[in-house]
Amino acid sequence: MNLLRRCSAEAIGSAMLLAVIVGSGIMAERLAPGQSALALLANTLATGAGLAALILSFSAISGAHFNPVVTLSAALRNALPWGEVPAYFVAQIAGAMIGVVIAHVMFELPWFSASQHVRAGMAQGFSEFVATFGLLVVIIGCARAKQSTLAFAVGAYISAAYWFTASTAFANPAVTLARAASDTFSGIRPADAPLFIAAQLLGAVTATYYFRWLQKAELKQ
Amino acid sequence: MNLLRRCSAEAIGSAMLLAVIVGSGIMAERLAPGQSALALLANTLATGAGLAALILSFSAISGAHFNPVVTLSAALRNALPWGEVPAYFVAQIAGAMIGVVIAHVMFELPWFSASQHVRAGMAQGFSEFVATFGLLVVIIGCARAKQSTLAFAVGAYISAAYWFTASTAFANPAVTLARAASDTFSGIRPADAPLFIAAQLLGAVTATYYFRWLQKAELKQ
Amino acid sequence: MNLLRRCSAEAIGSAMLLAVIVGSGIMAERLAPGQSALALLANTLATGAGLAALILSFSAISGAHFNPVVTLSAALRNALPWGEVPAYFVAQIAGAMIGVVIAHVMFELPWFSASQHVRAGMAQGFSEFVATFGLLVVIIGCARAKQSTLAFAVGAYISAAYWFTASTAFANPAVTLARAASDTFSGIRPADAPLFIAAQLLGAVTATYYFRWLQKAELKQ
Amino acid sequence: MNLLRRCSAEAIGSAMLLAVIVGSGIMAERLAPGQSALALLANTLATGAGLAALILSFSAISGAHFNPVVTLSAALRNALPWGEVPAYFVAQIAGAMIGVVIAHVMFELPWFSASQHVRAGMAQGFSEFVATFGLLVVIIGCARAKQSTLAFAVGAYISAAYWFTASTAFANPAVTLARAASDTFSGIRPADAPLFIAAQLLGAVTATYYFRWLQKAELKQ
Repeated sequence: MNLLRRCSAEAIGSAMLLAVIVGSGIMAERLAPGQSALALLANTLATGAGLAALILSFSAISGAHFNPVVTLSAALRNALPWGEVPAYFVAQIAGAMIGVVIAHVMFELPWFSASQHVRAGMAQGFSEFVATFGLLVVIIGCARAKQSTLAFAVGAYISAAYWFTASTAFANPAVTLARAASDTFSGIRPADAPLFIAAQLLGAVTATYYFRWLQKAELKQ
Repeated sequence: MNLLRRCSAEAIGSAMLLAVIVGSGIMAERLAPGQSALALLANTLATGAGLAALILSFSAISGAHFNPVVTLSAALRNALPWGEVPAYFVAQIAGAMIGVVIAHVMFELPWFSASQHVRAGMAQGFSEFVATFGLLVVIIGCARAKQSTLAFAVGAYISAAYWFTASTAFANPAVTLARAASDTFSGIRPADAPLFIAAQLLGAVTATYYFRWLQKAELKQ
Repeated sequence: MNLLRRCSAEAIGSAMLLAVIVGSGIMAERLAPGQSALALLANTLATGAGLAALILSFSAISGAHFNPVVTLSAALRNALPWGEVPAYFVAQIAGAMIGVVIAHVMFELPWFSASQHVRAGMAQGFSEFVATFGLLVVIIGCARAKQSTLAFAVGAYISAAYWFTASTAFANPAVTLARAASDTFSGIRPADAPLFIAAQLLGAVTATYYFRWLQKAELKQ
Repeated sequence: MNLLRRCSAEAIGSAMLLAVIVGSGIMAERLAPGQSALALLANTLATGAGLAALILSFSAISGAHFNPVVTLSAALRNALPWGEVPAYFVAQIAGAMIGVVIAHVMFELPWFSASQHVRAGMAQGFSEFVATFGLLVVIIGCARAKQSTLAFAVGAYISAAYWFTASTAFANPAVTLARAASDTFSGIRPADAPLFIAAQLLGAVTATYYFRWLQKAELKQ
C-alpha cells in the first residue's frame, strides 16, 4: 500500500519532469528558431528550476529519485530494499512516458513521435558517463545534508551539466527512453538510446563505489 | 482586525507581484522588440525571483498566498477558516488590479487597457490545468518544510512553468483577471480568461485531493 | 573602535557592490553592443548574485546595509543607534565612490566621469519610490528570518526590480551618487540624482511605517 | 590515509570544476559563434551552478577548496595544518589538468592545446587581485555560516565576478594553469598565467589579513 503511494509520487514526479524537459524544449525552439544557444539556455533554466522544485515537493514521500540509476545506487547503498526496485523502475519509466504525452498535448503535437535527433559516438557516450558520475557524486555527497540542500544541488548540477557535457547530460535512463519518443528539441534517436543508458549505468555504479571507498575510510577513524 | 492586516499583506503582495509580472514584461518587450525568447527569459527571471522574495517577506504575516486557488486549497485542507476566504479573494483581486496600475504608471501607460493577446483553445486550457496542478503539488508538498524552502520552490517552479506550458503558466485567477486589463507583453484577452480560471480551479482541486490520498496513507501507518 | 571596523565592512562591501554594478555594466555593453536586453540581463544576474554573496559575507559584521535608506530604516526601527547613522552614511558613500574607481581601473577608464545617461521625469521617480518601498518590505519582512534567507531574498528582489521598474531600481542613495560619477551603461546624469534620492527616502520611510502598523497589530494579540 | 582520501576528493572536485568551466565554454562557443555576451552568460551559469553543487558535495570530506589560494588562506588561519598544504596543491593542480582532458575528450578535441587567448596588462592583473580578494572575503565571511550557505555564496560570487572583472575572474592558480592548456573559449595564453597567479596570491593574502584584523577586534570586546 505504502509502496503504491510512493510509486505514484515517483510516477507523477517523473511525468512532471519530462513535461518540463520536453515542453520547455518545444517552447524554446518555437520562440528562438535557429538560435541554439538561447534555446538551450531557456531549456536549462526550466529544467534546473523545475527539477529542484519537484525534488523539494516529493522527497519526503518517495525520496524523489525520478531516475532508475538513482534508485539502483540507493539499493546498492542499502537505502532502498532491492525488492522495491522493480516497482520504482516501472513507475519512473511509465511516468516519464506520460510526461512526454502531457508536453505534446500542451503544444498540440501527436502523443508520441520517434526522435530523429542523432546523438551517437564515443564522445557522446563518454559525456553521459561523466554526467551521470557527477550526478551521483552530488546525490551521495549531499545525502547527509538537508533534503532542501540536496534538491538545490541537483538542480544546480543538472543546469551546469546541460552545458559542460557534449550530450547535454540526460543522465537518466527513464528520461532517455522518454525523450526517444519525442521528435522535438530535446529528443534522441531511439537507436542511440542503448549507448546512453549503458554509459549512465556505468557512471552511476562508479560513483557509488567511489563513495563507498571514501566512507569506509571515514568509519575506520 | 488581525484579518484586516493579513488582507493588507495579501493585497500589497499581490500588487507587487503584478507590478513584477506586467512591469518586467513591458521592459522586456521594449528592450528586445521582436525577440520573444529573450523577452520571455527576462520576464521569467524577474517573476521567479520576485515571487520568491515576496513569499519570503509576507509568509509569516498572511501565508503569502497572492492566489485565490492557493487560498481555496488551504481552506480545503483546513489550513484557513472558510469564513476568511472571501476577504482573501477580495484582497488578492483588488491588489492585483492595483499592481497593474502601478506597472502602467511606471512605464507611462494608461491605468488600464483591455488586452488583445489571444490565448484560446483546449491546449491552452490543458496547459493551465497542468501548470496549476503542479503549483499546488509544490505548495502542498513543501507545506511541512521551512517557509524559505517553500518560497524558493514556488519561485523555481513558476520559472520552469513559464517555459514548459503552452500558456506560460498564469496558474492564478487573480493574476489572470489583472493581466486581462493590460494590453502588454503579459496580457490575456478578457474573453479567454474564463477558460483559464476554470482550468486553474480544476488543477488546484485535483492536486489537493491527490495529496489528501497520499497523506491518508501516511496516517494509517 | 568596534564602529570603525563595522564601518570598514560597510565601506568595503559598498565598494564591491559598486564594482559589481558598474563593472558588469561595462562588460555587458562591450560584449553586447546595441543589445540592451542581453546587456541588462547580464548586469542583472551579476548584481543579484553579487549582492547576495556580499550580504552573506558581511551581515554578521555590520548588518550589511550598503545603503543609507536601509540604515535610516534600521534607526527608525531602533535596530541601530541614531548616533552611528552618520558614520554608516560616510562609509557607504565613500565606499561606493571607491567602487566606481575600482571598476573603472579594471576596465582601463578614467577614475571618474560624469554620466550623461538621462533618467528624468515623474515615471522614473515613481519607479524609484516603488523599487525602494519593495526593497524595504523585503528587508523588514525577512528581518526575523535567518540572515541567509534575507540575503537571498534581497538578491532575488533586486534582480526582479532591475526589470519591473522603469528606472532599473537603483533603490539606494549611495549607489545613485556613485553611478552619477560613471559615464557607462549603469550611469545616471548627476542632475537626475536628487529626484531619485528623494523618491528612495519616501519609499523607505513608507515601508517602515507600514510594517510598524502591521507589527503593532501583532503585539496587541 | 585520511589525507589520501581528502586529496582524492580535492582532485575529483577540481577535475569536475575544470570540466564544467572548459566544457561549457566549448559548448557555448559552438552554439553561439561570435556572440560573446550570450556565450559568457551560458559559461557563467554553468560555472556558478556547477561550483555550488561541487562544494555542497565535497565540503564535508575535504573542505572543497579546489583552489590553492583557498588552501593557503586556510593554513594562514590555522584551519588546515601547513604539512597538508603541498598534498592539497598537488591534488588540485593534477585534478584540474585531468578536468581539461575530460572536457576535451567529451568534445572530441586533443587532450591538451596551448591557449592563444591573450589576457595581459596591468588592468587584467588588477582584475585578478580584486576577484580573488572578493572570493576570499566571501569564503572567510561565510566560514561560520552553514556549509550550504558558503557553497551558494561562492557560486553566486563567481557568477558575478565573471562579469564585473575585466579578466572574467579566474581567481584560482590551479584553474589558471589548467586553462592555459586549453585553446578554447575559456583559455589563457601560458605567458599570461604568471601575472594572474601573482595577483591571485596577493588578493587572497590581503583578504585573509583584513579579516584577521576584523576578528581581532571582535575578540577584544
